[in-house]
Formats: sequence, structure tokens, C-alpha cells
Amino acid sequence: MAEENPAAPRIAAAELTRFITAAYRAVGIAAPEAERAADLMAASDLSGADGHGVFRLPQYIRRIKAGGLNTAPDIRVIRQTRAAALVDGDNGLGSLVVARAVETAIDLARDNGVGWAGVRRGNHAGAAAVYAAMPLAHDMIGLYFAVGNANHLPPWGGVDMLLSTNPIAIAVPALEEPPLVLDMATTVAAYGKVKVAAQQGKRMPEGWMIDRAGRPLTDPDRADDGFLLPIGGYKGAALALMFGLLAGTLNGAANGADVVDFNKDDTTPTNTGQAICVIDVKAFAEPAAFKRQVDLVIRQLHGSALLPGFERIRLPGEDRHRRIVERQARGIPIPPALRRALDHLAADLAIAPLFG
Amino acid sequence: MAEENPAAPRIAAAELTRFITAAYRAVGIAAPEAERAADLMAASDLSGADGHGVFRLPQYIRRIKAGGLNTAPDIRVIRQTRAAALVDGDNGLGSLVVARAVETAIDLARDNGVGWAGVRRGNHAGAAAVYAAMPLAHDMIGLYFAVGNANHLPPWGGVDMLLSTNPIAIAVPALEEPPLVLDMATTVAAYGKVKVAAQQGKRMPEGWMIDRAGRPLTDPDRADDGFLLPIGGYKGAALALMFGLLAGTLNGAANGADVVDFNKDDTTPTNTGQAICVIDVKAFAEPAAFKRQVDLVIRQLHGSALLPGFERIRLPGEDRHRRIVERQARGIPIPPALRRALDHLAADLAIAPLFG
Repeated sequence: MAEENPAAPRIAAAELTRFITAAYRAVGIAAPEAERAADLMAASDLSGADGHGVFRLPQYIRRIKAGGLNTAPDIRVIRQTRAAALVDGDNGLGSLVVARAVETAIDLARDNGVGWAGVRRGNHAGAAAVYAAMPLAHDMIGLYFAVGNANHLPPWGGVDMLLSTNPIAIAVPALEEPPLVLDMATTVAAYGKVKVAAQQGKRMPEGWMIDRAGRPLTDPDRADDGFLLPIGGYKGAALALMFGLLAGTLNGAANGADVVDFNKDDTTPTNTGQAICVIDVKAFAEPAAFKRQVDLVIRQLHGSALLPGFERIRLPGEDRHRRIVERQARGIPIPPALRRALDHLAADLAIAPLFG
Repeated sequence: MAEENPAAPRIAAAELTRFITAAYRAVGIAAPEAERAADLMAASDLSGADGHGVFRLPQYIRRIKAGGLNTAPDIRVIRQTRAAALVDGDNGLGSLVVARAVETAIDLARDNGVGWAGVRRGNHAGAAAVYAAMPLAHDMIGLYFAVGNANHLPPWGGVDMLLSTNPIAIAVPALEEPPLVLDMATTVAAYGKVKVAAQQGKRMPEGWMIDRAGRPLTDPDRADDGFLLPIGGYKGAALALMFGLLAGTLNGAANGADVVDFNKDDTTPTNTGQAICVIDVKAFAEPAAFKRQVDLVIRQLHGSALLPGFERIRLPGEDRHRRIVERQARGIPIPPALRRALDHLAADLAIAPLFG
């Protein structure tokens, strides 16, 4: 996780949510949906997933204005069994579609012990952890899979970019410790990190990308000449494939050659697919006892002697938890380039700027 | 996957199963259970997972003779909701316990669209792919997670080995193509590959292991001085942790400091945990249409132009499928060292040797 820019001005989460709501309202989204989608977007910013929150708002608005996203979708369950559901997002905002799927899966898990909901015809939805973590409040475990919105990965041994950096997120509740929340791309670096390196004029370390001849690619301005490397070589490429099948193909959503690069195309419906599996802890254990045992495992791991060069053991979700606490208290930092983009958006939409 | 030793004599799968059955019978396991467990063990050998099949039989028998494994377990579902079940293995053979869990999850998925079964008080069960692939015959998808039977992995940044190389296996059916079957450890190399390097007197490549000072460890005879590296650094360690919680802690099975190293300890019950999630394809799509779409993705990936140095795109499960076809036709190769171990076992148990 990148270190904060200490100079960046901060905005309260409630102010950010109001701004996002106003932007969505200005392009024709009804108030309740605009507010809900704004909350979900700000949840990415609050938790430190800066590349997945309001940073994406200008692109979302551009797509809506280009007619590539439905502002009044009929989001509904089109296939239902006792513990599984398929949600058709009708090309609406991805956050609203996925949130519906998560709520559905939580209900299914409450009734059946486990619930699985898939999404078709959705869109980019923000940070995966936001959705995986929703079941935590119900003493439930969340597993979330998504097909990324651009293919940056070839099959292992190939050069044609047919796979995305399909993220995996898993959230497990603890008792006194913060919950464990994993949110990872199946590549060594997420594509957002390449963009950040390019913005900052920095070279990338070897191991992030290779070019089409298989040589290390370290110049982020040449990113289009190569592709991201999967974690563990063929293993990461295989994870991207398998979770792409679960989140995309199984739901009738895009996966493989039919994935739309939403950075370059504002009009073609993306038919984005996601999947959420929710497990009700009490189907397996008394929740407090389980969470106490998770605390115990966390404390064992924290108690490990350290490798040279490490100051502490950081477990998945710890930084996220710390960021949420800190940003709820002190606000969300808005770096200058992002502020300029949002000011431009505000002028364009004739809404009040973020910093009034 | 290691290349075959062309000189190794081969044995028909049916002969191997008879031998394993006889060994289990000789230590007091009843005929139906001995036959079933033999089939499941031979399934690892048939599919090329040589480190997980009959190679393990002498160790299993040693544990049974030492009283560390229950030869007449009462394997039963001790907790049940509509779509989830918890199986108590009563310290029986891991294969029989996991097979029960998979059968249970298949039944649950048939009735509910998805089913999840967890295992406690089981044991080492063989290759993960054997279990993940069982739902395929029912047009179902399998996701299998297990806690490994020895901790070879510290938390990221630490040196205390508190995590195992917890495998993940996922199997997705195709129509005309072989099914996609992923079976991977969350470390760059599985521990078995280190053992093979030691046997063969070869050095390991950098990136498999590091020592307690964080330096590359390439001498497999010094494996006890270091530990395996997870895929993608902190990402692989996090996957091992999260899937360990799902397969172990959630089920009341071992995970973390209470994992028993079954290579060094033949008597303490391992309380091994596994979990299987089964998705009925027809809850989401017409199965033939889905499998045709999986074929299409497979063919897209196979059609990719190649990186220099690669001859073809290999997708997860292809080698496995090829091995099964080849070994069903030509038999299972038994290298000399394994044959000696099995001859020794046969003499010890007063059963007919494998090669009669």
C-alpha cells in the first residue's frame, strides 16, 4: 500500500459521498441509487483502495454520457435455486449490481449455511474487498471473484492478452483483532501500480512485466509493449483463468476474448461478471468460538520471529483496517492531480466542487 | 510435472489397487473401506500425482501400526444445514473422510445449487485434484482446499513455520476439451519437489526456498535450515492463511501452531481439515452451453501466439488428462526406489508383492 502524501488536502467521507451523489444525479441516476453507489465508491477510498474509488468517477461519468452504461437498470435475479442466484445487472453501475448480489448471497447463506450469487451484465464495481467484507457484520465469511475490465495477461507461455488480472478477495471475521481481509490481483503487480509508476516517472522493478520477447520490461511508459506477470508463473495465470470462469463464463458474462477494455471503449456494454460466495460461520461453529480461534491464529503469526529487514508481520486486512479508522477520523486525502480532475468534472456537470 | 522414467516397470491400475487393498486389509481395515481407499489412492498415481499416491502407503501403514490412525472410524456428518455440512472423520483414512465430504457436497449442490462440506479429524488424503474433479461427472464445478500436513511456511516477513503449503484445487467441466483442473500449492515449489531434488542430488533454483537470514537456499539437503517461498510473496502467504482458515479453523481442524508434522510424528492424531465447495452448473446455465463456452475459452488460449522458448500453451489439467489416458492404457510406472519400499512393505505385512 502506497504511503500517504502528507501534503494532500483531505475531505470528510460524508463530503466525498455528497460529491459523488451529485455527479451521479447530474447524469440522470435517481437519488436512492446515486446515494447508494456513492457510499460504495467512497468505501474504496475510505479503505485506502485509492485506485478503485473516486479516482474512477470521471471515467464512469464519461461512459454514462457516451451511452455505455444504463442509468436506470432493472437489476434482478434471473435464475434462482435454494442457495444460488444469478443476478442480471442490466448494464447498470457495477457497485449497485454487485451489492445486490452480495445481499442476495447473505440471505441465501442465512437460510442454507452457504450462498453463492453470480453477476452478468454488470460493470466495474470498485475494490473487491468492499464486497468480500460485507458478510463480516453477519458473522459470515465472504469470497469474491471478479473478471477485470481489461485483459493485461496472456495465457502462460503466450503473448496474446486474453486474461485479466482477475482479483480474489476473501474476508474472515475475528473477535478482538481486525478481520482478515485479503484483496489481491493474480498478477505480481496490479495494472494500477504500473499507471502510478508512469505518473511518477519511476521505473518498475523486474518481475512486474515482460515484453513480447520475454525480456523484463521496466519502463512503465512502454507498458503497451508487454504484459503483467502472474504470481508464481503458471500458477497465477491458472488462478486468473479459473476464477475468470467462475466470475465470468459461468454467469454468461465476458471472459477471454470478449472482455471489453473499458479504458479504451466507453460505449460497448462490458458485460462484467463477478461472483460472491458467503458462508454462515454458525453452519460450522459457534461464531464467538470460531472468531476467538481466528484471533489465536493471528496472534501466533504476529508472534513469529522476524526475517532481517522486516519490522513486523503484516497480515491481510491490517493496513486496510488502519486506513479506515484513520480516514474516518481525519478524512480522505485527495492528491492535486485527482483534485484537478474532479474540479474539471464538477465544472462539466455544473455541480459544486469537492472542496467548496 | 516430472518426465517419466522410461525404464521404470509399469503396473496396471487394477493390480496397484489390489496391492493397496491387501495392505489396508492386513492392518485391519474392513474390505469395502480398504477397496475404496485403494481406488482413491491409485487415482493419484493414475493422474500423475506420484508424490500423493502409493508413494505414501508405507507412511500411512506405519502410522496405522503406531496407533495414530483409526482403522474403523465412524465417519459422520455432525452439523448440517440445507446447503452446508461438517464431517467428522473420527481420525480415519483421509481419503475416505474427504470422499464422504465430496459426496455430501455433491448431494447438497444437486438440491440447492451450491453445497459446501468441511472436514475435521481427517488425515492426509492424497492429490487435491482427485477430490476437486469428482463433481465433474455430475456437470458440477469443484473447489477444494486443504490444510497441509506439515508447516513449511512462515507468515510473510517471519521465520517461524506456522503455515502449510495449503493446496487449492479447482475443476471446471468442458465439452469436447479435457476438463480444466488446477491443483497447486501456494508456494513456488511444493515440498515434494525439494525431496525429489535431494534424492537426485540436484540443487534447487533460486526462488524456491530461503534460509532464516533471508538468503536464497539452493541445497535441498539443507532444507531444514530454511523454508519455502510463497507465490507472489505476501500474496501466496495470504492465500495459504485464508484457505487454511476455511479448510482448518472453520471446521475445528488444525491450522497454525497445532498442525502435526506427519512426517515426524506417527502417533498424534493430525486433526486434518479440508473443505469442498460444489457448484451445480445448471443453477447458472444450461450445462452443454456452459461447457461449449469453456471449450471456446480453452481454444482461444491455445490459439495465442507463443513467447520465445515455449512450444505450446499448457492449461491446467491438460497434463493430468494426458497422464490418465496414458496410464490407463500402459500402466503406472513404479521407479526402483518405490518398488523396493513396496516390496519391503509387502514382506512386512505378509502380502503378495506388487510385481508377483
